[in-house]
Amino acid sequence: MSLKVAARAAVPAFEVMRILDRVAELRAAGRDVVSLCAGEPSGGAPAAVHARAARIHAERAELGYTSALGVRPLREAIAAHYGRWYGLAVDPSEVAVTTGSSGAFVLSFLAAFDVGDRVALARPGYPAYRNILASLGCEVVEVDCGPAERFQPTPAALDVVVAETGPIAGLVLASPANPTGTMVSRAELTALAAWCAANGVRLVSDEIYHGITYPEDPAVPGAKGVCAWETDRSAVVVSSFSKYWGMTGWRLGWALVPADLRQAVDALAGNVALCPPTPAQHAAVEAFSPEAYAEAEARVADFAATRALLLGQLGRLGWGTVAPADGAFYLYADVAPKLGPFPDSAAWCAALLEEEGVAVVPGADFDAAHGTTFVRLSLAAGRAAVAEAVERIVRFQDRHA
Amino acid sequence: MSLKVAARAAVPAFEVMRILDRVAELRAAGRDVVSLCAGEPSGGAPAAVHARAARIHAERAELGYTSALGVRPLREAIAAHYGRWYGLAVDPSEVAVTTGSSGAFVLSFLAAFDVGDRVALARPGYPAYRNILASLGCEVVEVDCGPAERFQPTPAALDVVVAETGPIAGLVLASPANPTGTMVSRAELTALAAWCAANGVRLVSDEIYHGITYPEDPAVPGAKGVCAWETDRSAVVVSSFSKYWGMTGWRLGWALVPADLRQAVDALAGNVALCPPTPAQHAAVEAFSPEAYAEAEARVADFAATRALLLGQLGRLGWGTVAPADGAFYLYADVAPKLGPFPDSAAWCAALLEEEGVAVVPGADFDAAHGTTFVRLSLAAGRAAVAEAVERIVRFQDRHA
Repeated sequence: MSLKVAARAAVPAFEVMRILDRVAELRAAGRDVVSLCAGEPSGGAPAAVHARAARIHAERAELGYTSALGVRPLREAIAAHYGRWYGLAVDPSEVAVTTGSSGAFVLSFLAAFDVGDRVALARPGYPAYRNILASLGCEVVEVDCGPAERFQPTPAALDVVVAETGPIAGLVLASPANPTGTMVSRAELTALAAWCAANGVRLVSDEIYHGITYPEDPAVPGAKGVCAWETDRSAVVVSSFSKYWGMTGWRLGWALVPADLRQAVDALAGNVALCPPTPAQHAAVEAFSPEAYAEAEARVADFAATRALLLGQLGRLGWGTVAPADGAFYLYADVAPKLGPFPDSAAWCAALLEEEGVAVVPGADFDAAHGTTFVRLSLAAGRAAVAEAVERIVRFQDRHA
Repeated sequence: MSLKVAARAAVPAFEVMRILDRVAELRAAGRDVVSLCAGEPSGGAPAAVHARAARIHAERAELGYTSALGVRPLREAIAAHYGRWYGLAVDPSEVAVTTGSSGAFVLSFLAAFDVGDRVALARPGYPAYRNILASLGCEVVEVDCGPAERFQPTPAALDVVVAETGPIAGLVLASPANPTGTMVSRAELTALAAWCAANGVRLVSDEIYHGITYPEDPAVPGAKGVCAWETDRSAVVVSSFSKYWGMTGWRLGWALVPADLRQAVDALAGNVALCPPTPAQHAAVEAFSPEAYAEAEARVADFAATRALLLGQLGRLGWGTVAPADGAFYLYADVAPKLGPFPDSAAWCAALLEEEGVAVVPGADFDAAHGTTFVRLSLAAGRAAVAEAVERIVRFQDRHA
């Protein structure tokens, strides 16, 4: 009698996984590959965070379970961060430390949405949102967000979705977004939160790329991103040490949890995860030191320079729509004018990798409906790598013109 | 318009949480409290693991995302461990490194069971199993397992459950179990696996307490626990660095994943968790060094001495049924004969804490139906603490006789 594999485990395969495997193969064979696939900054954690971790381990600290929502000093430090960046008073009891932002999404989806609940999110978007939601039994409602809406949902678009398909229980918003890097303004966020409130919809605001932004005036309020709690404390705010502080592998994030979900998130966290990683919790307190902020800002300046370089080459690249990357470290662009003989960007990406040794992610991974001529480039590889990639891409496109 | 809290987030409160809070209050007020509540060993990680972690951080390693199922050297080291302990040939590709055993349970439940699937488990048992399963939309089928079955499910009991309530999709087995510490023999495990195979039921075998066992002859095969894969490779085997190696807060565990679930677990892991904590993955390779095994064995010897001390005092304590703790570091006992004026063990535990400053966990947390006169004592506090606790409990019981 053969055993079942759950239908909900049928997660779609990502083209980027095939590309990453091929990058590894080509490099193992001695090829010089420039990879612009990475969803993580290079450079790693701030020095003070590493130093604290090294000390903890040198002293053989016991590192047992902590409270399900994290140690008090870290919850206090995160709460203080909201005062510093947003002028928001957050109580440490409102902060849930989680196992990466992934842990925060799982916990907040479980706390806010039942099996069968319908949850909306932007297309294009980070594919794990829809895959987590679907695996938890929620119905994913993809809202097409094109260049006209800067790839972000609007109240008008949500009205259409609800009118055409029925009510929704939740909305996942990401600003800056992956893959587009676009951000919602304070006015747009306020309008979306008001729409959610009027429609009984729980807003889940993904703010993991906050701080990695390219504002004209860094002194303007909201330059690091507008926090949903500036507008509405019934939203779940999700953030992370992974991107701004470069601590992806440490698996440490957090959520600001609205009062009505607090007990549920606490109880679920204790059962589903027990607690976030203890060594990382203790070390991450140092992420809020002036030295660590300074290191993070230096990395953001590097991204900004790389972004400027790439934007300066768009004329030569001759692509169509390019998402206005207000933040994050990606550029999402429509290569339709330069597809040449290739039927879609997946084939274009595969050929680019084989012929020129440049790896980028095809857009269908983020938008199966309208992303088939798009690509996502990551700025994380740095200026030299991006400059070299541009030369190779131009050569590739000229050859297939 | 008020927002919904998911019905599935209504996780029952645990009495132990109230007790732990009260322990903290009493200690803050200067009371000398002996806590036998802990679900984790004291002493922390092996020296070699800490040393490796300290080195990684001193060198400011980048610690980015790893493969969703973990770094190759750790998967190889875990696979080799199965040769060493069980004589089993396990391929590294069959090992999924996870964020604690919690991560392994979430992933394997998602991969094997759909919303609405019925999954059986022993009562008494670890409450997180049923809470995770319920939050994922599965129906939990509790199988009453009393002293006659040594608190473990049997094919006969499962036949009754299926006959009375309908077919099941899964069975969660824990050996050694929490809270009882009882283990299934090789013959019993083989019979259960055969029953599962005959009934199309996926076996999920929780082996996180393997190695913490008290066999008469440590040289006998299976003395550290019998692995489900010795019998049937369609089972999911879950284990962890938390208990035997004392690394609870590091949040690192693993699963042996049957071939038919491998792709699903890989895809789900990448979406739900991205990867297990990277610093812990690199450091944990050292857990398989001879020095680290020796440290773990020394801790097991301590548990054995504490267990012997406690078993030697059972006559004085005058309790009823005491589960034969073959492994783990708990003693699950029926205090019914010594309840005195208290209606149940929850009230008994609360009074014991207030009057004598001894904290133990009431059985209802593990078995709401039949655990109301039981308590769980943890050996993790060590001999001196357990000896002191026994004196206080005897005094408490005499006073309320």
